[in-house]
Amino acid sequence: MKTFLLKFTVIVIMASALRSAQAGEKPMLPTQDTQAIQKTVTGLFDAWNRNDMKAYASFLTEDCDWINIVGMHWRGRQAVMKAHTAYLSMMFLGVKQQTLESTIDEITPNVALVILTQRMDDFTIPAGKLEKDMHDRMSLVMVKQPDGRWFIRIGHNTTIDPAAAPFDPTK
Amino acid sequence: MKTFLLKFTVIVIMASALRSAQAGEKPMLPTQDTQAIQKTVTGLFDAWNRNDMKAYASFLTEDCDWINIVGMHWRGRQAVMKAHTAYLSMMFLGVKQQTLESTIDEITPNVALVILTQRMDDFTIPAGKLEKDMHDRMSLVMVKQPDGRWFIRIGHNTTIDPAAAPFDPTK
Repeated sequence: MKTFLLKFTVIVIMASALRSAQAGEKPMLPTQDTQAIQKTVTGLFDAWNRNDMKAYASFLTEDCDWINIVGMHWRGRQAVMKAHTAYLSMMFLGVKQQTLESTIDEITPNVALVILTQRMDDFTIPAGKLEKDMHDRMSLVMVKQPDGRWFIRIGHNTTIDPAAAPFDPTK
Repeated sequence: MKTFLLKFTVIVIMASALRSAQAGEKPMLPTQDTQAIQKTVTGLFDAWNRNDMKAYASFLTEDCDWINIVGMHWRGRQAVMKAHTAYLSMMFLGVKQQTLESTIDEITPNVALVILTQRMDDFTIPAGKLEKDMHDRMSLVMVKQPDGRWFIRIGHNTTIDPAAAPFDPTK
């Protein structure tokens, strides 16, 4: 009987986890998770704007992946931070970013998707071109930690091309 | 005692799920999940290359998000497919893509991260410019379905800028 109950419990929990991951539903995260996610996202961009790379790193999982606006792919927090630290000491030194829009969605109870529209201060790329009023679209996949905080497992960023926007087939 | 065992089981399972999501570990997906993920990814690009948008849609969750290479954000399978169907009837008509590199990582037992490097056939954007030999970096976050298949919850794509590549601080 005990074995049966244990197996049943396992099945119920797994089915529940799968159900929330299934197509067609919009599961809602508990308020405390949404708040914890918002805290991480706010903390991340505050850390960028203060150029505090130690704080920035504290919001990433150790196995974090990152894809930046020119398609570079960095694997692991150490590589992600090496790249960010380098860019924030040159191209992005003093360049702040501002969140214009954001959505938070549950993927499973322990994994969430955050999509942000960001605006960057003007900056000059290494090849010399001035980037003015750049907007970008960032996705963050976040994972709940045992202490209730949510860390970033992957950050992926793409520049919004204002010339392409009028051709969006869904608009 | 039964209640204790049930609670204990719940705790052990939740702790295990959280542990595998935690920083610092590289959990491994079971082979059958890796194979199911590969099948979806192969199926997705086969569907693109055959311009079979019904097949393409079959690999997306109903709540799928998509961010394309110019930063457009589509929410929901219906919007994602409306956009893909439009682009594959004009700009991407007959334009094939090829996977050059891919990685698959477990995020949790039911959520995986796939990162791909793709090469596109030459195509002309609506504004008239010819895009030659474009490479892009795509991330797919995939969710296990109750029947064992893995569907795409978010696709995000960024053009790789070959002029920027020499400035990668991690290389």
